[in-house]
Amino acid sequence: MTERFSVTYHVRGAPADIEARAQAIAVEQSVEMPIAAIRDQTVLSEIVGRVERIEDLGDGAFAVRVGLATATVGDDAGQLLNMVFGNTSLHDDVVLSDIAIPHSLIQAFGAPRHGIAGLRSRLGLPRRALTASALKPQGLPSHALAGLAEQMARGGLDFVKDDHGLADQSYARFAERLRACAAGVAAGARASGHPTRYVPSLSGNLDQLRTQATLALDQGLDCALVAPMICGFATLQALVREFPELAWLAHPSMGGAARIAPELLIGKLFPLLGADAVIFPSFGGRFGYSRQTCRRLADNARRGDAMRAALPVPAGGTTLDRTREILDFYGPDTMLLIGGNLLLARERITAETERFTDAVAAHVFA
Amino acid sequence: MTERFSVTYHVRGAPADIEARAQAIAVEQSVEMPIAAIRDQTVLSEIVGRVERIEDLGDGAFAVRVGLATATVGDDAGQLLNMVFGNTSLHDDVVLSDIAIPHSLIQAFGAPRHGIAGLRSRLGLPRRALTASALKPQGLPSHALAGLAEQMARGGLDFVKDDHGLADQSYARFAERLRACAAGVAAGARASGHPTRYVPSLSGNLDQLRTQATLALDQGLDCALVAPMICGFATLQALVREFPELAWLAHPSMGGAARIAPELLIGKLFPLLGADAVIFPSFGGRFGYSRQTCRRLADNARRGDAMRAALPVPAGGTTLDRTREILDFYGPDTMLLIGGNLLLARERITAETERFTDAVAAHVFA
Repeated sequence: MTERFSVTYHVRGAPADIEARAQAIAVEQSVEMPIAAIRDQTVLSEIVGRVERIEDLGDGAFAVRVGLATATVGDDAGQLLNMVFGNTSLHDDVVLSDIAIPHSLIQAFGAPRHGIAGLRSRLGLPRRALTASALKPQGLPSHALAGLAEQMARGGLDFVKDDHGLADQSYARFAERLRACAAGVAAGARASGHPTRYVPSLSGNLDQLRTQATLALDQGLDCALVAPMICGFATLQALVREFPELAWLAHPSMGGAARIAPELLIGKLFPLLGADAVIFPSFGGRFGYSRQTCRRLADNARRGDAMRAALPVPAGGTTLDRTREILDFYGPDTMLLIGGNLLLARERITAETERFTDAVAAHVFA
Repeated sequence: MTERFSVTYHVRGAPADIEARAQAIAVEQSVEMPIAAIRDQTVLSEIVGRVERIEDLGDGAFAVRVGLATATVGDDAGQLLNMVFGNTSLHDDVVLSDIAIPHSLIQAFGAPRHGIAGLRSRLGLPRRALTASALKPQGLPSHALAGLAEQMARGGLDFVKDDHGLADQSYARFAERLRACAAGVAAGARASGHPTRYVPSLSGNLDQLRTQATLALDQGLDCALVAPMICGFATLQALVREFPELAWLAHPSMGGAARIAPELLIGKLFPLLGADAVIFPSFGGRFGYSRQTCRRLADNARRGDAMRAALPVPAGGTTLDRTREILDFYGPDTMLLIGGNLLLARERITAETERFTDAVAAHVFA
């Protein structure tokens, strides 16, 4: 008997059509051809997707659960995406809502190497929430970004990460910027006495990403940022396997808002590929994720089922005066990321960063 | 002065808010921080995105055109996606509608190496529309797929492509399948006297894709299929650069239906990365693209501006009895792909394929 895993789609449609629609999705995401044209009995019994359940969610929406054969995915993370949503992503009335990830895929894909416990252990921070900010704007030369990095690190942050817009641009080449910012963060960390980590943003194809990851290790760094929806699932899978010493932060760029449920994409799939921490736009900032979506996303990342728990990183327009609210909502196993709003302090950035890190350190959870 | 290129977003919102919303997108897709926090004059004048135009489309929709600095993209196709839609993809009221691609990016990214003219020249077919079908279902062993490939090639198809679900699965390993199907198509081509091309579907990370592309060349093949939204833009960019002998067909898997306009994503961006032919779900099949979307997509692919023209490949549930309608709609610079619906002929597959290829060859355009 073939192993199957369950994939849930939310489908909009009429009650009279939903059974045929569900069956069409099961076929589209497995053999992608008329069943009547299939002669092979093994394919019919073992490979064709099976509708397992249809639930009426009301208001013309249905949850359709389909069992797909794990063998169709193999051990390729790109193929996972292809099989669970490839062609069905072209239908605008279907959302990929959830996947019950089987243990065989967790083993094949690696899952977090460090996770919450590993990140806490590195920093010697067993309990409190973690803090981060972002280096920007792009367009600054490396030395200016490095100066900002040092000022931020002096304020006692746990992580200073590159903005995800920083790549290998002419105005600040990756290798030069990496060395400058790593030195800046190290200088700030010496001044503050806190082991602040610099997290460079890696980009490009697998060769370029490898070169960048190697440069990061050469500088003594132990974390890196990457955007899985830009580099591709299979690329991240390869990076995590080749660089297990690095803790991987996943950026949600190109993650979309509506076609794959964020709690699945960011909360489950990025960790499945090996992300130790997942950045996402929190409610109350510049983006529209609801509290419920944020709650589920954070719960999914931390639960990890048979995986190490990954660290949720709410971000996207958070301000210092909301620290208390955000921490009470997410709890201590969280990294709070305030980027642009800290930078508004301009020449007072170190003092503003200290206010942020002090507030997080002093927070007593409700 | 920095070079800028124009990116158009369709935004839903209230007229009173649209200017602020447009400005927010320009900032999000460039410096991603409050403008008030930027001290560097060069960044303010050269890097921050600029709202160039806001057009009221009626019904609460606006076209917002933003000028982004080409320098922020560099020569990385992944970074192009990051800069034009990375964070804004997280807003569900914004669609990426169009990009005026500057010549510098066409030069950096390569664009089609062969295009319509190259594909026609290889096959010795200067005028008529081209034909293709797809090998499936996955789950069949390699020899069964190879048998089907031979039967299809005997029917005189121009291209026999792998279904995009075929990867490197345990039931038909890539290398074995490639050799078997290449031999099957070659045998069918000898029988028919027509130089049918076999197009294997490549998958995995860049290393795996390279190995597969090399195997394809070793078998004397000159085409390959890949899904850019699964492998990642930077991965396709690297493949096209490294394997200029191969003509690249792009598959729309994970292309979504609504967040990036298909006429842009499939019609412009896939060719920009080097796709010589672009498969897309045509109106009237299993998917919901409108006639207008299909028209624009095909026009964009063929126009190519400063690039070689890429071949549009309407697919996704097309049937033989619609050949005339589809050809009259798209015109002769088209590859018509009928997959599953040919397979319904089962043991009569060669005869059914001949009916298809004869109909295309005999078609007189209206």
